[in-house]
Amino acid sequence: MYSSYDVIVVGAGHAGCEAAHAAATMGSSVLLVTMNMQTIAQMSCNPAMGGVAKGQIVREVDALGGMSGIISDKSMIQFRMLNRSKGPAMWSPRCQSDRNMFAWEWRKTLEENRNIDFWQDSVVGVLTKDGRTVGVKTALGVEFKANAVVLTNGTFLNGQMFIGEKVFGGGRTAERAATGLTEQLVELGFESGRMKTGTPPRVDGRSLNYGLMEEQLGDENPSKFSYTNTPALTKQRSCWITYTNQTVHDELKNGFEKSPMFTGRIKGLGPRYCPSIEDKINRFADKDRHQIFVEPEGWDTVEVYVNGFSTSLPENVQYDALRKIPGFENVRMFRPGYAVEYDYFPPTQLKPTLETQLVKNLFFAGQINGTTGYEEAACQGLMAGINAHRNVREEAEFTVKRSEGYIGVLIDDLITKGTEEPYRMFTSRAEYRTLLRQDNADLRLTEKGYAIGLASQSRYDNMIAKRNGVTELTSAIRAAKVKPEDVNGWLQEKGSSPLREKGSLYTLLKRPELEQNEINELLARIPNMPRVGEEIAEQTVIEIKYEDYLNRERQNVDKLDKWESLAIQSSFDYDQLKALSFEGKEKLKRLRPSTIGQASRISGVSPSDVSILLVYMGR
Amino acid sequence: MYSSYDVIVVGAGHAGCEAAHAAATMGSSVLLVTMNMQTIAQMSCNPAMGGVAKGQIVREVDALGGMSGIISDKSMIQFRMLNRSKGPAMWSPRCQSDRNMFAWEWRKTLEENRNIDFWQDSVVGVLTKDGRTVGVKTALGVEFKANAVVLTNGTFLNGQMFIGEKVFGGGRTAERAATGLTEQLVELGFESGRMKTGTPPRVDGRSLNYGLMEEQLGDENPSKFSYTNTPALTKQRSCWITYTNQTVHDELKNGFEKSPMFTGRIKGLGPRYCPSIEDKINRFADKDRHQIFVEPEGWDTVEVYVNGFSTSLPENVQYDALRKIPGFENVRMFRPGYAVEYDYFPPTQLKPTLETQLVKNLFFAGQINGTTGYEEAACQGLMAGINAHRNVREEAEFTVKRSEGYIGVLIDDLITKGTEEPYRMFTSRAEYRTLLRQDNADLRLTEKGYAIGLASQSRYDNMIAKRNGVTELTSAIRAAKVKPEDVNGWLQEKGSSPLREKGSLYTLLKRPELEQNEINELLARIPNMPRVGEEIAEQTVIEIKYEDYLNRERQNVDKLDKWESLAIQSSFDYDQLKALSFEGKEKLKRLRPSTIGQASRISGVSPSDVSILLVYMGR
Repeated sequence: MYSSYDVIVVGAGHAGCEAAHAAATMGSSVLLVTMNMQTIAQMSCNPAMGGVAKGQIVREVDALGGMSGIISDKSMIQFRMLNRSKGPAMWSPRCQSDRNMFAWEWRKTLEENRNIDFWQDSVVGVLTKDGRTVGVKTALGVEFKANAVVLTNGTFLNGQMFIGEKVFGGGRTAERAATGLTEQLVELGFESGRMKTGTPPRVDGRSLNYGLMEEQLGDENPSKFSYTNTPALTKQRSCWITYTNQTVHDELKNGFEKSPMFTGRIKGLGPRYCPSIEDKINRFADKDRHQIFVEPEGWDTVEVYVNGFSTSLPENVQYDALRKIPGFENVRMFRPGYAVEYDYFPPTQLKPTLETQLVKNLFFAGQINGTTGYEEAACQGLMAGINAHRNVREEAEFTVKRSEGYIGVLIDDLITKGTEEPYRMFTSRAEYRTLLRQDNADLRLTEKGYAIGLASQSRYDNMIAKRNGVTELTSAIRAAKVKPEDVNGWLQEKGSSPLREKGSLYTLLKRPELEQNEINELLARIPNMPRVGEEIAEQTVIEIKYEDYLNRERQNVDKLDKWESLAIQSSFDYDQLKALSFEGKEKLKRLRPSTIGQASRISGVSPSDVSILLVYMGR
Repeated sequence: MYSSYDVIVVGAGHAGCEAAHAAATMGSSVLLVTMNMQTIAQMSCNPAMGGVAKGQIVREVDALGGMSGIISDKSMIQFRMLNRSKGPAMWSPRCQSDRNMFAWEWRKTLEENRNIDFWQDSVVGVLTKDGRTVGVKTALGVEFKANAVVLTNGTFLNGQMFIGEKVFGGGRTAERAATGLTEQLVELGFESGRMKTGTPPRVDGRSLNYGLMEEQLGDENPSKFSYTNTPALTKQRSCWITYTNQTVHDELKNGFEKSPMFTGRIKGLGPRYCPSIEDKINRFADKDRHQIFVEPEGWDTVEVYVNGFSTSLPENVQYDALRKIPGFENVRMFRPGYAVEYDYFPPTQLKPTLETQLVKNLFFAGQINGTTGYEEAACQGLMAGINAHRNVREEAEFTVKRSEGYIGVLIDDLITKGTEEPYRMFTSRAEYRTLLRQDNADLRLTEKGYAIGLASQSRYDNMIAKRNGVTELTSAIRAAKVKPEDVNGWLQEKGSSPLREKGSLYTLLKRPELEQNEINELLARIPNMPRVGEEIAEQTVIEIKYEDYLNRERQNVDKLDKWESLAIQSSFDYDQLKALSFEGKEKLKRLRPSTIGQASRISGVSPSDVSILLVYMGR
């Protein structure tokens, strides 16, 4: 009855939206199936994008041609570059979002793409034939045909919500769970598990006393996520900081005996680094306070998100405890926090493209793979969408290396190590994090995105212009001599010692006390310097300042790269290698890494196992 | 634990929003309980407000100080004054709305009212004590105390949705049903029934061929709903008209054996005047086509509402039939239409204030009373909210007479006649419809709204200025003589015969061919006429043109008013009146009309029964 599609994307959260947009932009006909067209791209958790390591991911998604950066820019109400006082590898963009605008901007973006169709329904089964997917079946009984399917079911698969002793079926507040799909996938041979996440109460901003909290303003000169020409913020809304205390903790403890976590009714593991407040006071009993971050939900709403107070305790306990927080004495709740438990599929069942090993052209992305976070979901959706499109066209797989981006780190971690608890990105997970900075995601990835037809021509041109600008400025700086009279006044202002004689600009720039974002002021004082924008100036100076370090890192990457990407046939017979350790052989047979690099990162595969493999392969 | 409130409003649709806003504006502390704060004021059905008789209701709600008019004005994408070619009593404002903006404007309006708190939850029971309500109990187990409760549960009470042979629990697409409340109310002694309504498929505007349809533009000089200074539209979006045909009907008939209506799975009666397409082709078998009205869902979305094609046939039948409609050859559906069956409470259990007879300070408004339509719901919510507030303050009941407004007609119809099928307003239901025009709702009702503290001072001042303007202009017109040379050119343009000699302006204005909205052009040609706005000019001319007729109607009202509002004690003992007819006595005892007027309109109460009552009461 209905048309058949190149790609069907199930779910329209961060992962599903990026997947649908990517595949469609590259030319696939896409059907996006969502349980509710009114809730496309709903931010289920806090109204913010980015943060440490996560902001870098958004920049990478943007550099490849994804939309999360542009949509964040269009809907943000505050922007901050975190960790400005640290080295450039730690700089991390973060914004507060207008929840409604974010969702609506995504919906408009998807609607404007003529290759995307929409269908509101719940998917209950993946259709397969001869080991490959051929479409989906819905609760309404419709069968849609497709050459590839991307599942991004979020927390909806057999979702159950907990508030104290109350349990409701549902994937998100006031929304229904999706049933049937897990069971069908398990029947196909997939292994599934349970995970848990949670969300704090939403409260009435009119009932808070901000006078007792600490204001957190946005940056004075707000930057943005996208490398494209999205408009910068001209006004911003503040967030507020307050703290729990012993009285709050005592109130919360009153509810412990009714806690679905502590009484064992929730079986799934929750996100270690985004724990519930009851978890925090339980695990860190010595801490006498925890930070509460009060986030507005948009430009023109009084609703407020109480970040740091995620909880599934009974709602009266939540209420009593909230009221003991400074500034919350007269708080009115809109709704209590809750925990949600849902099915996920251990991601060791996936290839580096996020295609499942079991069913050809079936892809998983987002929380279904055991991750947490909007940004982690978005980049998986993007990669799954790209590869779904390329599989349909029988084009080569598209991956990002660990040395090329956090996206590579994330996917490689997932498929080689798996995860027992919701996986979240950190800078510490990336061994080459000094190379994976927010300032250079375009230089790292836009060429790749352009080559596959995702990043647009103008995006590519911008990147080339930036790269050329950096080259040109670097040459000019290398050649320049600075006269003391041109710069000493400025150096003094910055607390840097004056030049005594004419000297090398290149050397001068390496002085650590000169901030990378002030360098243009210096360059303006030197005759015959090319005039460049902030972005090029900063990029150039970072490369000069950290030259030796970055070069060493790049050499490491090259060395490791030689065997990192050495392919292992998926049909490789590990049993013939008698010398492999028992555990190593077990893991290699189960996880079937596609490169030596992956094999080396599997826990249980020893360096000697890797050597044996290399020897066998003639290295 | 929580604060207690003056008024709790359950449900945040058109009825609930008006109720909460009215009670809060008058000074009550209000808690608005909704199952989902993201769906406050969602338009469940088509994206439009007003229409014949319904537009008049929106104007009346506005005149009293309600918000539906202002919010419609702020969110509309097209405006048309229907029936402009007919007499002024038939003129009916109607707009197309941006679905999202409408909901968001309501939410902002409610958030801006400091007397309104919000709670997201489902109400499962009304708390009562000594025959009066004292609060509600929710699914989360919270008990909120209140002096009055307004229930506006829409289609959510035990809602079941039907699409072909599929049945889903739910009150609206992708939203859960509300369970438990009906059963609790029945336990308290209320009688409940089932009703049914439906909605058409939503489709992708990008897949339609508008070239095969008839364009319906908005008015050239778009008016608006509110008497306040809301901004007028400066651009508009078009609607489109097309028709079904025999092939469409044949396709639909293929699904009849799976129709939940025709196979008896749906028990509730649906809205007679807004029937499903299968109903139309079944009941009007001789009609070879039905009109389809294609409505855009907003400024910047491709989603389209297929008005006239409401259906609960299987989705493949809907799809096949849609594609046979001119312009829909390549249509892509976003989601199929569905029917929803839900509980309602026969409104004969209510007082004229919409308070229940059984439980003091408990009010019902909207679809729970068996009505259909946003406007019908909104005005009930307004009246229930007003009276809940006044009951709490022990102030007199607030009602609108049948001769004062459609609101009066609607409520009087409901409580005296009840309804077996979803009740919709028509001009024919109003015996004084020539008095109840869209142009004079402010003159009829704003004083009443102002007196109870709902309509604002500026609204009242506007009305007084208009009234004075009309008086002044009427005097001037009555005094004025017109010279042929001043007006004959204009008269000729309008196709009206020229004056041969100086004559009365008053008489001239009565000419039927002179359009009421062009009168200012004429007045401008006459020396010493006061300069007034369109609104005052129109109002004045309507009164002059239809003077005799309107005066006769007003006399009728006065005559009937004498005994119309004659009160009957709620404890009146009908058994003592042996002469009453058996059926009349039965109905009177059951319905307990509060006035002779109401008693006279109860079906089964004969004129002689009314005479007996009047005689007993000394008339």
